[in-house]
Formats: sequence, structure tokens, C-alpha cells
Amino acid sequence: MVEPVREQVQEVTRELARYLVASRFADIPRAVRHEARRTLHNWLGCAVGGCRDPAVGAALAAVRDISGPPQASVLGRADRLDIMNAALLNGIASHVDDFDDTQQRRIIIHPAGPVAAAALALAEHKAIAGEDFLHALILGIEVECRVANAVYPYYDVGWMTTSTAGVLGAAAATGCLLQLDDGQLARALGIAATQAAGLRVHPGTMSKSFNVGSAAQRGLLASLLAAQDFTASEHSIEGIHGFAEVMGEDDRLSAITEGLGQTFEVSWNTYKAYPCGMVLFPIIDGCIQLRQENEMGPQHLQGVSLQVNPLVLDLSGNMAPRNGMEAKFSVNHVVAAAFDCGAVGVAQFADEYVLDPAIITLRDQVAVHADPAVERDAAAITIETKDGQKLSKYIDHCRGSLDRPLSDDELDAKFGALVEHVLTKNEAKKLIGLCWSVDALDDVGILARAALPALSD
Amino acid sequence: MVEPVREQVQEVTRELARYLVASRFADIPRAVRHEARRTLHNWLGCAVGGCRDPAVGAALAAVRDISGPPQASVLGRADRLDIMNAALLNGIASHVDDFDDTQQRRIIIHPAGPVAAAALALAEHKAIAGEDFLHALILGIEVECRVANAVYPYYDVGWMTTSTAGVLGAAAATGCLLQLDDGQLARALGIAATQAAGLRVHPGTMSKSFNVGSAAQRGLLASLLAAQDFTASEHSIEGIHGFAEVMGEDDRLSAITEGLGQTFEVSWNTYKAYPCGMVLFPIIDGCIQLRQENEMGPQHLQGVSLQVNPLVLDLSGNMAPRNGMEAKFSVNHVVAAAFDCGAVGVAQFADEYVLDPAIITLRDQVAVHADPAVERDAAAITIETKDGQKLSKYIDHCRGSLDRPLSDDELDAKFGALVEHVLTKNEAKKLIGLCWSVDALDDVGILARAALPALSD
Repeated sequence: MVEPVREQVQEVTRELARYLVASRFADIPRAVRHEARRTLHNWLGCAVGGCRDPAVGAALAAVRDISGPPQASVLGRADRLDIMNAALLNGIASHVDDFDDTQQRRIIIHPAGPVAAAALALAEHKAIAGEDFLHALILGIEVECRVANAVYPYYDVGWMTTSTAGVLGAAAATGCLLQLDDGQLARALGIAATQAAGLRVHPGTMSKSFNVGSAAQRGLLASLLAAQDFTASEHSIEGIHGFAEVMGEDDRLSAITEGLGQTFEVSWNTYKAYPCGMVLFPIIDGCIQLRQENEMGPQHLQGVSLQVNPLVLDLSGNMAPRNGMEAKFSVNHVVAAAFDCGAVGVAQFADEYVLDPAIITLRDQVAVHADPAVERDAAAITIETKDGQKLSKYIDHCRGSLDRPLSDDELDAKFGALVEHVLTKNEAKKLIGLCWSVDALDDVGILARAALPALSD
Repeated sequence: MVEPVREQVQEVTRELARYLVASRFADIPRAVRHEARRTLHNWLGCAVGGCRDPAVGAALAAVRDISGPPQASVLGRADRLDIMNAALLNGIASHVDDFDDTQQRRIIIHPAGPVAAAALALAEHKAIAGEDFLHALILGIEVECRVANAVYPYYDVGWMTTSTAGVLGAAAATGCLLQLDDGQLARALGIAATQAAGLRVHPGTMSKSFNVGSAAQRGLLASLLAAQDFTASEHSIEGIHGFAEVMGEDDRLSAITEGLGQTFEVSWNTYKAYPCGMVLFPIIDGCIQLRQENEMGPQHLQGVSLQVNPLVLDLSGNMAPRNGMEAKFSVNHVVAAAFDCGAVGVAQFADEYVLDPAIITLRDQVAVHADPAVERDAAAITIETKDGQKLSKYIDHCRGSLDRPLSDDELDAKFGALVEHVLTKNEAKKLIGLCWSVDALDDVGILARAALPALSD
């Protein structure tokens, strides 16, 4: 307390900023660029698919009267807002179905949301080339995930990392698009760090998605301010009373900058097979397989018993969900839906479906046992049928995990299903094509405009 | 980790919301209302006084192109922005001179900034009556300070409480102005809580003031969203992974709601006598008194030795400030300025003054000794003169502390000095008069309009 000046051990923030300025798109490996396209593709499908959710409608009603010029699109809708509010809305829309990209190497994070929502709003407004946009997306995710993995004791503390680290990623990406120099970028990261927020207290409510949109918006503001030489600490991550000290208990600051440019965080991105938490995926896989292999329906079911990683109950232990948003955090519900429909998609989280008495009965037949020995992407399912049979299934790697990633074709199919209530089949196909060739676009605004259905008012 | 549903011990957020709805201005004691007027008066002087600071200019340049309709004033300037951006700018301006109101009962917080900046922007736009505005200011400060005092281990952790708790106060005040019901208010507090941020890594930079403006802006957004029935946890303060659990290590949740309506946090507000951290006040008092009593100038000084609370060095230990903003965190600089000028005002933090070689020489003559036995509002100063005399002064309560508060007349004088580079004497006098009678105004927008000089473009 009495030392007026304490030494900085490392220069993390400034080194990140220097890397951002020095990085060249041409130096990024082909496979990494392709994974970035897959990330954008998955994110855009989620954002367009979520555009008519009540959360988006409520947020739009809240900001319509305060919004500035029509600079950027609310994806899938005729509404155009200033870039800050567009970033907020598209960030919310992209997370509202819980179908977005996920990493869970050290912590759970959905990398694209804050970064893509901020970068696309700015890029549309500034008519940025697709290559620069994809590059910024890669770099934003790089900063976001490196910080998240180095600093957070995520589960213990209760931060929503997607938001707290996402704001730094959004600042990095938009700072690159604004061509900030390394001093400005360091300060943009500082202004972002001082806005880092997002509590995990909100599952089942619109504020969970708000955390994503808010991070996009605040990260963009950080870059806009830094571009005008608004000042900030240039040691905001590693400094005294900085991000790592305040947010983390388990810092590995050197990991933030080690091997920059040699590995790429986007490489570890995965894309969800089902619109709910990934901890539920092996359970859903197992239930669907048991149903198919045994040609059985819910009417044959006496009871279901699960052995799962403890996180399943921590994150998704809601046994009596009252609506679709809450059902996304209900292991009982997804088991019921998997046996009922043989599929778990957006339709299985519609409010009416969640409140169907037959589904509620099925949910109550599910017993869940937490077992730390079960890996996060694994699950053991045992069912007892009404005629006394016991059937078991063990899933060691779920669909959508790093070990069993969705193929490009599966991503296309997921996109098509997500946007079918917004776009025609041809419109969806065109938009998918633009995602796969995004880095060839002269103006990435084409993406945003192609997300608007021709028949919208 | 394996318990799917954990019990809520208390219902803090909802109880706060119910109190906000039930509170009546007429039930608030006269002395509390007067202290609220003093709080507004001091805040408005700071905001108008800070309106031409480069931080405000840079922020204005950043948001001008994204701002919505001209709904609210940037105080003291001709610029009008949407309410969100006006709240941001006025919050920044009000803190930029470090001259704002302060509480340091358990933690250090500057209560008015986030609350008043958000409430005034909304109130100007909606032509709210002065009584309702002053009531909302009192209630916003109530929520902010109760949460801050109950939840924070401020110094240990590095949060800027003014921002982290201020966002809740801003949401409470604006939620009251929007006449939200208690469910909406609970959700507004939830949306605010999930935006709670603000690091102490930024002293000496514009981002310290940004934290204040940002809290105002984010709290206002929370209320705008809640008004459109955007959903959030209604247990955001006390819930699992909620504000208290994530932010605090030393929670006294029951203190948040105990005695609501019986005591008023604004009663403990103090107003700074000098534009820097309050820990420096007893030191400045002592130096000015020594200079006056002994009719001496800096030319007589051989050396200065201070015995001070350890916080002085923790918060203001910068021995070689490079500009005015950094000098606010330099105990050496304020001692030099006090002996040089016999006064420490905004002028003593001008960049040119801070870099004056004579002042730098004086700064280097100051030795600071931290002593935990010295209270925060006390200091012992010993000087040695060039002719070998030793003179000492012990200050036990500084000017501007709860024990020696500024009088109403002293506040008027402070206001006048703060705004003299913006308003004429008559304009300042009129604005001061409006502050003292704010609760009689039909439309509090008159305040904002009166802060604009007639000669501004």
C-alpha cells in the first residue's frame, strides 16, 4: 500500500497492440482463414435466425428513439441504426438461440458474438473490404480468447467471459478496421478493459444475450474514442488495479502474448449441433441414438438415468423450465425433447412446446447424476423401457465438439434451418455463398444487405 | 457445483425496487432535500467547469457522428446529443477536474456523477419537474451508496466504485423518472448490474472520467430496456453469480435494505475544497496555513516532511507528474502548489504550471512518510526553512470533510470559480439560483439550458 510506483512485470497490453498492427492477412495460414469463414458463417446464421426474437424486439423498441443515423443493418430486419446500436442488436440476436460458436479449452466462451457484431456494424458503415473484415475478426478473437484463457477463474467467480473478454476482442477488431496505431490500440484495449462486465446471473432471461451485444457495443466505443486520442492506461491488462488483477485469481499473463502469430485461437472454435449449452450435447446425442437404434418413442419410456459431468447441473440444472429460454438450461427438457422428436432444434425450445403437458411428464422421468469422472463432452445414458428392458449408451465425444466438428455441409444445413423463417431458400443460399467467399468481397456491407429478405417492409 | 437450485437468502434487488416505487418526495426530511440541492449544485458546477476539457472534446468527436437526435445538452456547450451520449459526456465533464462530491465512510465514492448525468439527460428530454428530478437524484444515490458500502472491498480489489455501483444508481434514478413498476425496476437494476465495470488502472488519463460517464450511460440504457420489458434476473444483486458474489469479498447484503427510507445516503455527501483526491486535503490545508501564518513563500523553503495516511501514497504517490491530470495524483505537486500560490485550484493543475521548472524543484523538496496511525482526513506537516527554523502543523479535520463541510456560500464561490471560463458572472449567478430552487422548477430542462452561455456558437 505504501509503494507509490510498482513495477510492471510485463508489457502485455502494448505487445498485443503491436502484434495487431504488425499482423498481415497473407501470413495467416489457409486453414485458419477457412475456420474464420466457418466462424462468420455460423455467427451470421445465428444472428439472422435470432432477429425476430422478443429480446431483439424489446431492445429495438428501447433504442429506436435514441439511435443516430442509419449506418448499419439490424441483420435480417429492415431497421438500420447507428453503428453502436446495430452492434448491440446484432450481438443480442446472435446469442439469443444459444446456438453460437463455442470454445471450452480452459473456460467456456462464445468468441464470435462481441467481435463480429462490432466489426460488421463498423465495416458495413465504412464499406470495408471482406479481407480486412475477416482479418479483423481473426485478430479480435485472438485477443479475446488469449485474455479469457489467461485471466479467468470463470466458473468460480461468475463472470460471463464472452462479455468480459469479448469487449477487448471487439475493441481489437474495430481498432484494426479503424487503422489505429499501436499506442491508440493499447488505449482502445484500456478503454475496453474498463468496461469489462457481464454477470452469469441471467440465464433464462434476455440479459444473457444482452451481455454479448453490450460487449460488442462497448468495445466499438473504445475504438471510436481511441481514434480521437482519448487517453487511457496503456497497461490496462497487466497494470496495478488493471484487468488481470481485478478480474482474475489465476493469471498467466505471459500466455496472453506467447506465440502470437504462430497459433490462432479461431482454430479451436466449435459450432453447436443443438441450440443450448454444449454440456448437454453428449446427452442429446445419446438419447437420439438410443431412440433411433431401438425404434422407440416416448410412449415406451419408463425412466432415464444420466451420468454426467457436474457442469451439466451447474449450468443446465433447471428441472422445471417455464419458457423456451429457461428450457435451454434444463437437462431434463432436452432429454424429453430428444426422445419425443428425435431432434433438438429451435422448435424444441418454443414456449408452447416447453409447456406441453406431455413434455413436462417426460421431463419428470429423467434422473441426473453428477460424476466428476465424466468428461465435459461425454455422457452415459441408461433408459428403462415400459416392458422392463434396460438400454445404455455411452458418448465419448459429442457432435459439434473439437473431436467431431460439424462439416461445412452440416454448417450450411444448420444455417438454412436457422434462417428459414426469415429468408427464402434462395436468399439463404446466396448469403451462405457470400460467407464462404467473404474475403473476396470489395465491400463487406454486401453481407449485411443480403441478410435482409426481399419481402421485408 | 452439483446443486441445481440454490436458495436465495434475501430478496435485496426486489426490495430496493419496491422502496423506489413507494418513496414519496414529501416524506424526505428537509435537511436531506437541502443536501441533495447542495449535491446537485456542486455537480453542476463541476460539469460546466469541465465542459471544455480535452477529454470532453475527444469524446464529443468520437460520438458526434453516431449520436441520435438532439435530445439533451452537453452542459456548457452548444452541442446537443441523444440522451445516452449526453449522459456520457456530462458524466465525463463532471469528474474531469476531480472536484466532485465524495463519500468515504466505508469506501471512496463520488455519488452524484453517474446518477445526475443520467437523470438530467433524461429529465431534460422528458421535461421532468424539478421535484421529481431531485427525488430521483436522492433515490439513485441511495441505491448506489448502499450497494457500494455493502459489497465492496474497494481498495484491495481495484474497482472504481463510483462506476461499478454508480451504474445501479443511474438505473434507479432514471427508472424512477420513467415511472417503472417494481418488477421493471428490479430488472433495470439487473441490466445495470450486468454492466457494472470500471477499473482503477487509469489515474492521470481521460478514462478515469470515462468510468463515470460510462456508468451514467449504461445505467440509463438499463432503464430504457426495462421500460420495454427486456428481461433480466430479478435477483441480480444477491443471486448466484450475481453482483455481490462476483464483485465482493466482504458482503453485508442486509445493509443494502436495512432502514430504507429512515436514513439517506446523500446526507453523508461532502464537497471538495480542492480539485484532487480528498486524501490530499489535510496536507493542502496545513501547507496553506503554514504559509499564511508565517508569511513565507517558496523561496524560504528548505524542505517539507509529511506524516500521512498510507492511502495518500497509494492513491496520489506520483512524484513526477507529466501533466495536469497526473498532478492530481501527486502529493508532491499539491504541496509545491500550496506553498507557491497559497491556493490549490484548477489553475494549479494546468499543464504549463505542472511543468514549470520552479514547481518541479519545489516538488523534489517534499518527503512523504506513510503512517497508518494518521486518519484519512488528518496530516502532520513539518517544514524546514532556509534559515534553519522548523515549523509544524497538524490538521485533524480537513476543509470539505464531514466535520468541516463547505458552507452554502463556499459552494457558491466554488461554483463561480469553476465556471468563470464558461459563463459570465450573471449567468453563473442565475444558474446557482436555479440549483437552490431546483425542486420548484416546472421543467428541469431549464437548468441545462441555463448552463449554456449566451455567447456560445
